[in-house]
Order: sequence, then structure tokens, then C-alpha cells
Amino acid sequence: MKKRIAVLPGDGIGPEIVAGAMKILQTIETLYRHQFEITYADIGGCATDKTGTPLPNETITICKNSDAILLGAVGGPKWDSLPVEKRPEQGLLKIRKELNLFANIRPTTCYESLAASSPLKEDIIAGVDLIVVRELTGGIYFGKPSERRLIDGKPGAVDTLQYENEEIERVVEKAFEIAKTRSKKVTSVDKANVLETSRVWREIASQVAEKYPDVILEHMLVDNAAMQLVRNPKQFDVIVTENMFGDILSDEASVLTGSLGMLASSSLSAGGPYLYEPIHGSAPDIAGENIANPLATILSVSMMLRLSFQMENEATIIEEAVNNVLNKGFRTRDILAPNCTIVSTTEMVEEVEKEIRQLV
Amino acid sequence: MKKRIAVLPGDGIGPEIVAGAMKILQTIETLYRHQFEITYADIGGCATDKTGTPLPNETITICKNSDAILLGAVGGPKWDSLPVEKRPEQGLLKIRKELNLFANIRPTTCYESLAASSPLKEDIIAGVDLIVVRELTGGIYFGKPSERRLIDGKPGAVDTLQYENEEIERVVEKAFEIAKTRSKKVTSVDKANVLETSRVWREIASQVAEKYPDVILEHMLVDNAAMQLVRNPKQFDVIVTENMFGDILSDEASVLTGSLGMLASSSLSAGGPYLYEPIHGSAPDIAGENIANPLATILSVSMMLRLSFQMENEATIIEEAVNNVLNKGFRTRDILAPNCTIVSTTEMVEEVEKEIRQLV
Ligand SMILES: CC(C)[C@H](C(=O)O)[C@@H](O)C(=O)O
Ligand SMILES: CC(C)[C@H](C(=O)O)[C@@H](O)C(=O)O
Repeated sequence: MKKRIAVLPGDGIGPEIVAGAMKILQTIETLYRHQFEITYADIGGCATDKTGTPLPNETITICKNSDAILLGAVGGPKWDSLPVEKRPEQGLLKIRKELNLFANIRPTTCYESLAASSPLKEDIIAGVDLIVVRELTGGIYFGKPSERRLIDGKPGAVDTLQYENEEIERVVEKAFEIAKTRSKKVTSVDKANVLETSRVWREIASQVAEKYPDVILEHMLVDNAAMQLVRNPKQFDVIVTENMFGDILSDEASVLTGSLGMLASSSLSAGGPYLYEPIHGSAPDIAGENIANPLATILSVSMMLRLSFQMENEATIIEEAVNNVLNKGFRTRDILAPNCTIVSTTEMVEEVEKEIRQLV
Repeated sequence: MKKRIAVLPGDGIGPEIVAGAMKILQTIETLYRHQFEITYADIGGCATDKTGTPLPNETITICKNSDAILLGAVGGPKWDSLPVEKRPEQGLLKIRKELNLFANIRPTTCYESLAASSPLKEDIIAGVDLIVVRELTGGIYFGKPSERRLIDGKPGAVDTLQYENEEIERVVEKAFEIAKTRSKKVTSVDKANVLETSRVWREIASQVAEKYPDVILEHMLVDNAAMQLVRNPKQFDVIVTENMFGDILSDEASVLTGSLGMLASSSLSAGGPYLYEPIHGSAPDIAGENIANPLATILSVSMMLRLSFQMENEATIIEEAVNNVLNKGFRTRDILAPNCTIVSTTEMVEEVEKEIRQLV
């Protein structure tokens, strides 16, 4: 059956790494006789340049009519001084909301071959394998009012952290569903000693836990979680938390293993389509130089094949190919290590492709 | 001239580590012929037990009538199921508000002798010397509404992130004042791509910077800051940020060097008194066992002597004494390293005292 994929390259290195990932997708298509129908669309700064808005309606329509979405990256200094609603990030926030992508899934695993580029000592990171499940369509990102206003007659500003119980419940459930297939431990992160939304979060997490008697639930305060991620990341299996805490903690988690350029993510809704993207940003400083690391985007494609299309074999083949390429010592600059061979973006893609052809 | 010091031991290991710090203070008093008038008062869970509230009015009065305040730590599982307003942390939040302690100053330095207990690789942490300046009396910690309520007819909850421009200005100024005496770089951390309060924060930080032409101001998004702290903490000198981001980032920063048990902090108001406390918590699991590390509290006393009483020599002597004791290999369990001598809380205090007597 034909699969429709919306592809949103975005800004900076987005187009290059997405082009690489598309080559891998085509390789899989040919080798496994699938049919992928690709539709390209604009998001971010390039969309603002063309249409005046970072998420044109056409892009929304294309996404809604697809079975899955692949996103490169958005943003760059070029658009930093535009009015808020035209900035690239607004495209990202809006697509999350439009497609109801309430659960952002960010796995962090330790590639043995990359341990050298981790800032942490080897005994701390070896074996790290955790997933951050971040609530993505609620909280202080979308609460109103968010405005400048007088406070007791003096100029100031306000933002609103707001959650409906249902929004908390569905994302916590997603975390438990994932934990069930893994080490069966959920760490729910909040700031229940200060925030009312966190106290509600904690109650609901405990209620959801009752439905999963074989999964352990642990509550942790966000400040402590920020410490524990550095101190002993191995203690975590699945972390679930609200939007802003998830933004901070998942980025913190992503640098632990030294392989930020390798990390893929998925954003899930109730009925699909899901969105896949690398965790790293648009790196405008190296855009167009053919030196960016395409592996996180390639691994995002692998995630898509597994989660959206149930193509488990195809997904695994890509992961194995990436692993083999790393073990052979091929590296883009961001993950360079002694005695390795430095390759360009396109060379890295070719190496992965070669491996896939050998593995199938 | 007599100095009045309010001493609030609090819960868990609080009383033990404060007792140790008091011994050091008395040693300084005798050696330098100062007069410190100590008044003890209750805060936290022990205060709730005695009086029904975690911050009795008597404690507030004692603090307001003092020249400086030393706090141990508050909290413990014993009080976790009490109604919010009786919980130990509320005592902490209330004393900050009552004394208008708007700037929390948390230095993180790397003790060479403790590098072994850092989770980070040595080349990443060697030479780290940064200060987090956290806004402490505003933001989402104190904004109203903070309550459960119906949202579009469905059960939910809300918290409010609120800042007056003046609140932002005074804490950013404090950061610049501190940076002026150091490496002359301020990193202002916000989430200006999402929050209106952060956009105002960024504007005000830029305005304040104009008054300090010799200090460099850099803006950084909070998610990036959480990454950079792990990746390359040496890039930072003074970090200034709002209350909740500061809570998370300062705790993250505190574990980088592996010496959480060594870190002191001060909380400043416009006219004093200032409050000093160790960064670590009340560690109820080891309370009463005489094994807690008293050094962060002793170093909080040193900070007090320097900042509140301008006793620079006395402050430096304590710091040197602590350094010497570490170099001689004395360690409480939390900072134990190979070939070191494990000591109890009271033994550690005695060693520091001995060093001070030799140094003076
Ligand atoms: C660009 C920004 C709005 C976004 C966020 O904060 O969600 C980004 O940091 C992310 O994590 O995807
Ligand atoms: C106990 C808690 C309310 C407090 C805070 O969040 O401010 C603590 O984490 C701190 O950093 O002093």
C-alpha cells in the first residue's frame, strides 16, 4: 500500500540532511518494493520568506493529508528580528497544535562508538538508554494570557501555565505504554512543591499508574531531575513531564552521550499522522557546506518506518547500517574521534546506503 | 561592633551541619575578637511540628532584627502529606518573600581535589568557575492565579508566570555588578522564542547592559543553556535568569563539579539582612548519623563574613582552611575518593578548626 509522506526540509542544514534521509528512504523503497509518495512543503524561515508566514495553510493541508511527516529543522539569525508571529519557531509551535501532536518522544541512547565525544565519564554514560516523553501541545507554551500588562499599576508581563486534566492523562498514559515495552519504570517529573498544575500532574500520574501494575511510577522534582540526569542517567527508563520542563530536560539529556547529531524524535497524536525530526537544530553557521551530520534525520526515517508504517525490518536495517558505518570509523565533524575517517554529509549518506544494500 | 546573626537549623541534617558551622564561627569570633550574637529560630518541618506553621512570626521578627541569617536545610518525607501551607518548603518561600531576598547567588567552582567525584570528564570541568544569579521572589513561584479551575468546562489547573519590569531590572543589575568584579561576562537565560515574560526579560537585560560597557552580555535560550552547562561549562561566568529556570539550571550546575556538598549560596535583598545557606538539601535519610558534609554550611558562614560583614580576611581564612583539609585527604562520605581518610561531620569540623588556628 502506498504511503504518503509530507517532507518539510525547513531552514539551515534542514534541506541537506533531509535530502540525505530521502536517499535512504528511496533505497528502502526500492529494496523492499514499497511505494512512498513524497510531497515537499515549506515551514520556518524559508516559508516566511516565500509566503509571509512560517506555516502556510498549504503546508498544514499537505501534512493532514499524509500518513507521516518528516521535518528537518527551522530557524536562523536571519529571522530573529521579525515580529514574533513571523518567526520560524512559530511554524513549529503551530504545526504541533494543528496536528494535535501532544506527545514528543525523545530517546537518548549511548552509542559505544561515540563514548569519546560524551562530556561525561564513561562509567556514567555506558549503557544509558532513556526516553523523555514531553507534553507538547499544552502548558505555558500555549496558555493565555501571554502579554505585557500593568501589574499593580507598573509595567510588566505575564504568561500562563495551564493544563486540562485530560491533557495530562493522555501523555502520561503514552509514557506508561512505552515503559511497558521496556524496563517498566516511569519517572514523572514535576514541581509539585510549588505549582498547582504540578500537584494535579502528580495526582493524575498516580491514578494512571494504577492501570499499569507491572510498571513502577516514581515522582521526581524537576530541579532534582536536572541533577540526576548528569549524576546518574542510568537510573532512568521513561521520563514523562510537561512541555517546558520537557524542553529543558530533553535537551539536557540529549548531550549526555555526546551524540546529539544522532538523536531522532517523534511527535505523536491520537490518530496520526505522526511527525519525525532530528533533535538538533538548524545550525545556520554550517548550512550549505555539506558537513552536517545526516544520521539523526536518517534515524528519524527509521523511526517513521517502525511507528507509522509498522515496517520493523526496514527500521532495524537502517539502525544496523548506521551502527556499522560508525563502527567502521566514518564520522562527520561533530562526532569526530581519533583514528576515524572524516566524511561529508553526502559521503555519510552513501556509506549508510552501501551498508543497507549489503545487509538486505 | 556586635553582629546579630539569626540561625535557622531547620530539618534533617540541618541541625548537625549548622552546629558545625557555628563552631567555626565561634573560632573566628575568638581569634579575631569579634562579637557575634546568635539567635536560634525555627523554620520548616520542625517549626510546623512545634507551632503549626513552617515559618512562625517569631522567626520572621528574629530574622528582620538581625544583620545576617544562616539557614541549614528544610524538608523531609515526614511532612510530605501535610496540606501545602504547612509543608517545610513553604517556610522557605515565605522567608524569601518576607525579607525580599530577590537575588539568589550560587557560585559553582571546581575543587581540584574533588575532580574524581565529578560525573564530567576532567578536561570539561577543570577550571569551571561560574555563578548563577537566580531571581528568587517573582515569576511562577508567586504569580496568581495558581489554582484548580474549569478550563472550557473541563477540570484543570493554572499557574501564573508574572514579572514586573522592575523585578527583572534589579536582579539583572545585581548580575552585572557581580560580573564587573570577575570575567566580565553575563549570560542572560530566557525562553524568548515562546514566553512574553522572556521577551521583556531580554529587552531589559539589553537595556541594563548599556550601563556596563565593559561587561559582555549574551542571551541564551534555557534549553540551550541546559545543554551548554554539561557540554562546556567553562564558557560561563555569570548566568542570570528567572526563578524557575534558575531553580533548574543552578541545581544542574551544582552537580557538574562533583562537589554539591561544598557549595554555599547567598540570597540578597536591597538593604539586608542577607540569607546564607548550603545548596544541598536536608538529606533526611542520613540525618542524625554524624556523617553529613558540613563544608557547604561552613563556606556559607565564610560568604556571610565577606558579604554581610566585610570581613574579607576571616572569610578567606575559612576558605583556605577548607582547601587545606581537602588537600590533606579528609573526606566525608559524599566526596570520598581513593586514598582519602573518611571522617564524620564533627571530625571534619575539628579539622577545619585546627587549620584555621594554624593559619591565623
Ligand atoms: C524552537 C522552540 C520553540 C522549540 C520548543 O521550545 O519547543 C524547540 O526548542 C524544541 O524543543 O523543539
Ligand atoms: C524547596 C523548593 C521550594 C526550593 C525552590 O524551588 O526554590 C528549592 O528547590 C531551592 O532551590 O531552594
